[in-house]
Amino acid sequence: MKKKSNQDSNSDSLEIKRHSCSHLLAAAILSLYPNTKFGIGPAINNGFYYDLELKQDLGTKDLKTIEKKMHELIAKDLKFEKKVISLSEAEKLFTRLQQPYKIELLRDLKEKGSTKMEKEKVNQKSAEKVTIYQLGNFVDLCRGPHVSSTKKLNSLAFKLTKVAGAYWRGDEKNKMLTRIYGLAFGQKKDLKEYLNQQAEAEKRDHRKLGKELDLFCFSELVGPGLPLFSPKGVIIIEQLKKEIEKVCAGYGFEKVMTPHLAKIELYQLSGHASKFKKELFRVHSDQGHNFVMKPVQCPHQTQIYASQKRSYRDLPIRYMESEKQYRAEKTGEVGGLNRVYAITVEDGHSFCRVSQVKEEIKNMVKIIKDFYTSVGLWENHWVSLSLRDYEHQEKYIGEPKDWDQCEEMLAEISKEMNLNAKRIEGEAALYGPKLDFMFKDSLGNEIQIPTVQLDFATPKRFNLVYTNEKGEDEYVVMVHRAILGSYERFLALLIEHFAGAFPIWLSPIQVYLTPVGEKHIPLAQKLEKEIKEAGIRTELDLNSETVSYRVRKAEKQKIPYILVLGDKEKQGNLNIRKRGGQTEQIQKQDFIKKILEEISQKK
Amino acid sequence: MKKKSNQDSNSDSLEIKRHSCSHLLAAAILSLYPNTKFGIGPAINNGFYYDLELKQDLGTKDLKTIEKKMHELIAKDLKFEKKVISLSEAEKLFTRLQQPYKIELLRDLKEKGSTKMEKEKVNQKSAEKVTIYQLGNFVDLCRGPHVSSTKKLNSLAFKLTKVAGAYWRGDEKNKMLTRIYGLAFGQKKDLKEYLNQQAEAEKRDHRKLGKELDLFCFSELVGPGLPLFSPKGVIIIEQLKKEIEKVCAGYGFEKVMTPHLAKIELYQLSGHASKFKKELFRVHSDQGHNFVMKPVQCPHQTQIYASQKRSYRDLPIRYMESEKQYRAEKTGEVGGLNRVYAITVEDGHSFCRVSQVKEEIKNMVKIIKDFYTSVGLWENHWVSLSLRDYEHQEKYIGEPKDWDQCEEMLAEISKEMNLNAKRIEGEAALYGPKLDFMFKDSLGNEIQIPTVQLDFATPKRFNLVYTNEKGEDEYVVMVHRAILGSYERFLALLIEHFAGAFPIWLSPIQVYLTPVGEKHIPLAQKLEKEIKEAGIRTELDLNSETVSYRVRKAEKQKIPYILVLGDKEKQGNLNIRKRGGQTEQIQKQDFIKKILEEISQKK
Repeated sequence: MKKKSNQDSNSDSLEIKRHSCSHLLAAAILSLYPNTKFGIGPAINNGFYYDLELKQDLGTKDLKTIEKKMHELIAKDLKFEKKVISLSEAEKLFTRLQQPYKIELLRDLKEKGSTKMEKEKVNQKSAEKVTIYQLGNFVDLCRGPHVSSTKKLNSLAFKLTKVAGAYWRGDEKNKMLTRIYGLAFGQKKDLKEYLNQQAEAEKRDHRKLGKELDLFCFSELVGPGLPLFSPKGVIIIEQLKKEIEKVCAGYGFEKVMTPHLAKIELYQLSGHASKFKKELFRVHSDQGHNFVMKPVQCPHQTQIYASQKRSYRDLPIRYMESEKQYRAEKTGEVGGLNRVYAITVEDGHSFCRVSQVKEEIKNMVKIIKDFYTSVGLWENHWVSLSLRDYEHQEKYIGEPKDWDQCEEMLAEISKEMNLNAKRIEGEAALYGPKLDFMFKDSLGNEIQIPTVQLDFATPKRFNLVYTNEKGEDEYVVMVHRAILGSYERFLALLIEHFAGAFPIWLSPIQVYLTPVGEKHIPLAQKLEKEIKEAGIRTELDLNSETVSYRVRKAEKQKIPYILVLGDKEKQGNLNIRKRGGQTEQIQKQDFIKKILEEISQKK
Repeated sequence: MKKKSNQDSNSDSLEIKRHSCSHLLAAAILSLYPNTKFGIGPAINNGFYYDLELKQDLGTKDLKTIEKKMHELIAKDLKFEKKVISLSEAEKLFTRLQQPYKIELLRDLKEKGSTKMEKEKVNQKSAEKVTIYQLGNFVDLCRGPHVSSTKKLNSLAFKLTKVAGAYWRGDEKNKMLTRIYGLAFGQKKDLKEYLNQQAEAEKRDHRKLGKELDLFCFSELVGPGLPLFSPKGVIIIEQLKKEIEKVCAGYGFEKVMTPHLAKIELYQLSGHASKFKKELFRVHSDQGHNFVMKPVQCPHQTQIYASQKRSYRDLPIRYMESEKQYRAEKTGEVGGLNRVYAITVEDGHSFCRVSQVKEEIKNMVKIIKDFYTSVGLWENHWVSLSLRDYEHQEKYIGEPKDWDQCEEMLAEISKEMNLNAKRIEGEAALYGPKLDFMFKDSLGNEIQIPTVQLDFATPKRFNLVYTNEKGEDEYVVMVHRAILGSYERFLALLIEHFAGAFPIWLSPIQVYLTPVGEKHIPLAQKLEKEIKEAGIRTELDLNSETVSYRVRKAEKQKIPYILVLGDKEKQGNLNIRKRGGQTEQIQKQDFIKKILEEISQKK
């Protein structure tokens, strides 16, 4: 077993305890299922796992039994006994124990001095000695460190959570093993908190809520990774798009529209062909066409710039577009809205002079601030000044002196705008350094979406020029900016951040109306018409289910305002039910005014 | 030479004269360029052509010389002498005349009894006799008929118009010949009218105006057939989209959003895979993905319907979408916006019960009427009731009894709405009959765009059901509707219809402002701000060219209102220059009000 830390101390960090707990799990398994073949069992975030070859399937009940056995072993206060033995002794030992996976690891240690997979760097020298740890009957090949005895695990709050399949050493050509996952925390309250958080995350899961709220769907016939958006999902997307476009238009951005195909030459020139290689969707027809689907928007937009002669008087020219781009993600990796083939990206570029760059970037930062304030995420952000990987400059296009200037400009802007950007090397874009903005969602997850990128390289590749005051051609500078990134990921984020209870300006249905009985239908229809005419999205439910059932249904849809219309409402005094359950008496005209205000204030 | 009509009379129809004129052209060529090898020379719409193998290139001056020679031959009153001779005599004759193309045609007549290309049906029987026509020294293999002598062409108004390349028999594997085109009309005024119309069409050509007005462009690197829309083009498209969406939302349509890819299985089920075959773009990746690009929108939309359980209470459900679909048109055939690979289609579907079909279709007809009235094309329309090709019902999907019912329903609607639809067989869609609407543009061209299609077949293929009052599943009915078809073709139509002088609501720039001199800049900027804040699209030109140059530039951009701001305008009394040249004195506030009114009235 490998561990990041080599220090074999008694400090017993949580990581060491988690790793020790995986040995404890293995020891419990061995005593319950003596024929088990053991793979590996590392500590991971929040816990540990062990990969096993078992003769039987395990269910939830079995996990309880194993847990019980683990507690019994803790009570026995078994020692973690470390021994350093020669490779050949170890081979004899694990052969005797009939542990083929350990023997395979030993063979790697012998041949390459490491148990790492071939793709990774290895030191190529054979290991001479190995360490083994014995815990009761269970012997493991492991570098350690571990706690001294199971007593030290007494205070650990652990729980076996699930059984999954995992290929031996992560390679799908190998045998599928059984992986048992466990959570482990230093204190019970930490485990409890984590479990609550997980339950909350599950409740907020955008895949689950997306279906319940009828925002999007997938189809077997269309294929995975290709979401289809239902009317309610499109309303949210369109509201976001409108907001972005409004904010950006104020800074001179104009909309363009480009197709999803291009000749591969476009991306050979931009550098994306080699960057995306395997992720390119290639397109052909029986009639001899050959295209690729665009993996990014920028190269298409350069071609609109290049379609007319430009003068210094025309600059800056700013384009924006919300369009789908396509990337061939690995088939096994697509899922939900976070990993899809069809990504609707809101992308924009400013083509400007060097002397205009700072002003352009500052405006883009303002746009980002405006937009993220409007969706309530601006608090709690930090900024990364994402620079080259100085040791691997071959990964980028463009000239080092241009990179120097670009990085300096961004650092100056960070200072002038008090962004306090952290310098992070190796995070630059293909063509230049960038400012990346990081936020935290309501579950505490860090999200990186908006970005401003400075690019001297692309205009040179595409010969994007303008005529200066002297009538000479000069290269333009490109500034790339993304505000909300892709609508798919942003929608997933919003669903989970708000647990589906969107602010009213984004809510697909803002007001739900339903009559108490048949005789109240005309009243409900009249009100629906008035509310609709005010530009408020409303749904009138005339189903004949009981009133309480209808209200429950609307509550599950997380609609901001629910109105049940009966005799009392005839005089125009409405009894409104807010999301969350509070009720309020309000006059019709005041109600409409109130909602319109909340929408415009993006509450 | 072949002719559609076999009647060899003296009625001397225009077509016969045009065809005779092509022989006259050949005779003139032979006397000027004796070594010419002759291909074929038919009558065509508005004139004729002859394909020739010449030793030299021809220019405009040469065409004048040839025309002069043609008039000389007319003056000589040469006879068109017809002879019927045996195939072998004909072979000897054309061998002596050294006319290899004619010999090739004779070989076909011998082998297949026809000179038609292999792909077409031939009667397979060898011809025994052929007809030849002699005009002066020129002898042609031709079925006729012709006028009796060149005197009969005296009154014909003809003109040689251009020289082009054309592959022998239209096959690119063959030699490229020289094709000389001529126009020919019964009267001089008809020729003149046609030439004027051509000049007008050329001036209005959307490819030329699209570039001049900076609406769209093409890029060598992106590829042909893939237009990129500049900001001004996008403004027009967005205005159209907004109008369509507004009209359709009034009838309950909701927007959906679907990707451009799907598994081929989707189209195998819908029937489009076999319908589009060669026109499908196939998509794959190095990682083993296999998709096709959507050639139509309907199948994707069925999958959103199918994603939730539907009750009769939910119907009708109406989806609309403006998205790109992709068809692999033949590489040689793409050009301008009318024939592209990437087609942005505005498509919509109503999913309803049989009892709701008529109401749905009537609403769609109202939408079409509303929209085409708003773009000023509704006058001068007619409607086609497009039915099956009864002799080839295998071309369609679905059951004959459903087709009967659908066709009857559409006929009833046509009657009830006084559409006076003409029954046209063989024009139905793959899955059902339709109502197609035809308009005339300002050049008199007939345009077929909007359509309403009734479809019982697709829901059965995709198992699209709803639960009826008894709790049983019933198939839903799909009604397809297109309003403006594709934005690409519609934009081309609008550009040519309005010659680029779009109605103000569609004009990318509605008001152009420019100051007389530097001291008037603040005045111009103030006015720009006020006009913009009123929601009017305006451009402020601060370039230092002369005022008259700037005005001319704005006129070429066909901007509805041009304002030059000088001392006189300081008091708020504006001197506006309308498109077309008239000027008017108007107070600032009245001007803004006037424009807003014109925009909302779609003038």
